Amino acid sequence: MKKLEYVDPDEAFARLVKECTFKMGVDEIEVKNSFGRVLSEDIQSGLDVPLLDSSHLDGYAVRSEDVNGATKHSPIKLRVCRNMELNEIPTAEIGPGEAYKVRTGSYIPTGCDAIAPKEDVTVKGDQIEIISPLKPFAEIIPKSSDLKYGSLVYNSGHIIRAQDLGMLRLLKLETVKVYSKPIVSIASIGSELTEDTHEAGKGKTLNTHAYTISSLVEQAGGKPVYLGIVPDNIDDIKKTISSGLEKSSIMVTIGGSSVGEADFVAEAVSTLGNPGIIAHGLKLHPGRVAGCGVIERKAVIILPGLIQSTINGFVYFVLPLINYLTGKGFKRYEFSVPASIGTDIEYHKYHDFHKMSWVSLCRKGDQIFAEQVKGDSPMRNVLIKADGYIMVQPNIDHVSNGTSVEVLMVPGLSSLPIKG
Amino acid sequence: MKKLEYVDPDEAFARLVKECTFKMGVDEIEVKNSFGRVLSEDIQSGLDVPLLDSSHLDGYAVRSEDVNGATKHSPIKLRVCRNMELNEIPTAEIGPGEAYKVRTGSYIPTGCDAIAPKEDVTVKGDQIEIISPLKPFAEIIPKSSDLKYGSLVYNSGHIIRAQDLGMLRLLKLETVKVYSKPIVSIASIGSELTEDTHEAGKGKTLNTHAYTISSLVEQAGGKPVYLGIVPDNIDDIKKTISSGLEKSSIMVTIGGSSVGEADFVAEAVSTLGNPGIIAHGLKLHPGRVAGCGVIERKAVIILPGLIQSTINGFVYFVLPLINYLTGKGFKRYEFSVPASIGTDIEYHKYHDFHKMSWVSLCRKGDQIFAEQVKGDSPMRNVLIKADGYIMVQPNIDHVSNGTSVEVLMVPGLSSLPIKG
Repeated sequence: MKKLEYVDPDEAFARLVKECTFKMGVDEIEVKNSFGRVLSEDIQSGLDVPLLDSSHLDGYAVRSEDVNGATKHSPIKLRVCRNMELNEIPTAEIGPGEAYKVRTGSYIPTGCDAIAPKEDVTVKGDQIEIISPLKPFAEIIPKSSDLKYGSLVYNSGHIIRAQDLGMLRLLKLETVKVYSKPIVSIASIGSELTEDTHEAGKGKTLNTHAYTISSLVEQAGGKPVYLGIVPDNIDDIKKTISSGLEKSSIMVTIGGSSVGEADFVAEAVSTLGNPGIIAHGLKLHPGRVAGCGVIERKAVIILPGLIQSTINGFVYFVLPLINYLTGKGFKRYEFSVPASIGTDIEYHKYHDFHKMSWVSLCRKGDQIFAEQVKGDSPMRNVLIKADGYIMVQPNIDHVSNGTSVEVLMVPGLSSLPIKG
Repeated sequence: MKKLEYVDPDEAFARLVKECTFKMGVDEIEVKNSFGRVLSEDIQSGLDVPLLDSSHLDGYAVRSEDVNGATKHSPIKLRVCRNMELNEIPTAEIGPGEAYKVRTGSYIPTGCDAIAPKEDVTVKGDQIEIISPLKPFAEIIPKSSDLKYGSLVYNSGHIIRAQDLGMLRLLKLETVKVYSKPIVSIASIGSELTEDTHEAGKGKTLNTHAYTISSLVEQAGGKPVYLGIVPDNIDDIKKTISSGLEKSSIMVTIGGSSVGEADFVAEAVSTLGNPGIIAHGLKLHPGRVAGCGVIERKAVIILPGLIQSTINGFVYFVLPLINYLTGKGFKRYEFSVPASIGTDIEYHKYHDFHKMSWVSLCRKGDQIFAEQVKGDSPMRNVLIKADGYIMVQPNIDHVSNGTSVEVLMVPGLSSLPIKG
């Protein structure tokens, strides 16, 4: 019977990355379908916005010098020489005593340096009366003040949001290049497992983790492919890992990774390729029986079967790979927030391990407080109550109430509290 | 020519809500397709998890009193009387000097009160040798410690996350009841608009806002139905609003809402039903030419055409309706974070208006700083640089550097900064 040798998870991850070749695919997709995808190209502006000086509101474009000294009692009259339709390119220059009727967004003729709002003007035939002076440049939007021809609008790596869809369209782009969603194959290992709720309990364990892991892959920007349940049998496991790797960037197994006789996954990885297993047994708590390996320069991640360890293994090893493959770098979170620890945290075991602890967040005034959600690795309730996680460095067994921590947020799993 | 009468946006919204009848639909969907949906039912546990006291690891279930005083030099021998397979229900009680071989998750016979980890035990035939005492309840997961039969697991209104998919499956649920996605019809108003990038600039304005608003509706949990461009013509606008309302919970128009002659939208709403227009002209900056109305107890929201006003109108009036219809209450944000203002903000106009200002966020140490993104309502760049918004109450024209503010985050639009 072999014992696990626990290695530093950061060292294991670094070696994994070194042994892998990551192929980042690129898709060219329609702008309207690009929400949430990551740009794989820089986007420059091919136009000036606005194209010319234009009006901020409905009214009259004038020369401010013409209306200096206008008052209610001595209004100044200007002759309206043209109605500037939207998108009409002005051809004339404004002359003294002239005004151009404009709509919000209309381009204004050269020489106009102020807009008199429609509501402040009295129309008399083809003339208008203005009763107060206008500051130079009042209500004028200068040419290219919003977007300059040739300027960089987005960097490669930008995640496309709702407002970007409008901007990409404004730039007249029909399609955009984004990183492909990496395919992540997932297999559940264990002869005790069933997908059938009716069989569950009657000698079988209901397979539930694949649902959660598939969803986490998807929310991270990957494409999960679920390969089903594989019995505790070295040949079946080898066949599944091989076929999974053929069609995907990352192979993930769930379960079958503890030190029991039924642990064939690490053995399968070891025999399938070079270097095979990189690490099996990590100084990560929960998650110590997780592992990783490389077969033909592709990553295989071995997730333990106890749910907190499953999730921790996913966040530590799979999430950064998906993030990297989608142009976001090797990140283990989507974003993070500063918080204060609300109640002392004590670790009684695994002294020299990295601790990855799930916390619930709550708001008190201007501060976010983080409370450790207590419960052993198999406890589902920990993750149900969790909003994010904190990392505690090795050899630290105590985190005091009031300590500032960074709470890391996992896409699809984490959420921030509403101010009460 | 009519002038807008500006009313308080909160009063307008309250009246809108009062005049509407909101019908919240319910869908029964498969658990595996339920990510991101909102539960419309409380979920109680129909089982105990674990079903019985069970083992936290691979090893041997024993009576702790039997191994008191065990040492390396005087190990204590126990007889292994059975191998407890996963999911096997124990039938016997453990006797003195006995041990049961268990796997992680195996149920343990009555009387066992400790697990000896496999790695710490020497097997000799049908006996094991134990070389150190075990604390009572060591490595035992008590019956129902994770989930108790009949306990409330989720409240109605809970948003389903990745970890919930596994939990709902554990509860043996095949389907779950969630609030239906409310259908939101969207029409772009303006004879100057085109959907064709080639026509844009040549006398036409490219329609871009519908992309952004459709995406925001979707991210908020609604189902956008885009009705296309409608020319500035009262009959066409009336026809579009009527047909939009027939098939949707909320009707949204974009553009055509300023005080120009082309403003037929408010007129259309007024003539279509009772009470018709609730407000047209709001003490909201940007967003003062937004409006809302009610036709046959359904909401019509009139969004202005300048992008910041379009978005502000959406966030103030449409987002809370979608949130309400999906069981999340009348919220104008997904979540919020406390931040400090980084640079003084000054408002020079609209003194008694509510100001809705977009800010960019950055991290400095343990604090999040918010900087106003400057730029007039038509500026796209403001929203491109924005991470969230703050609300500044009427009659406040100055927000000093260092002021604590709450930054409100809009789904699909907002993001939190990464710690540098």
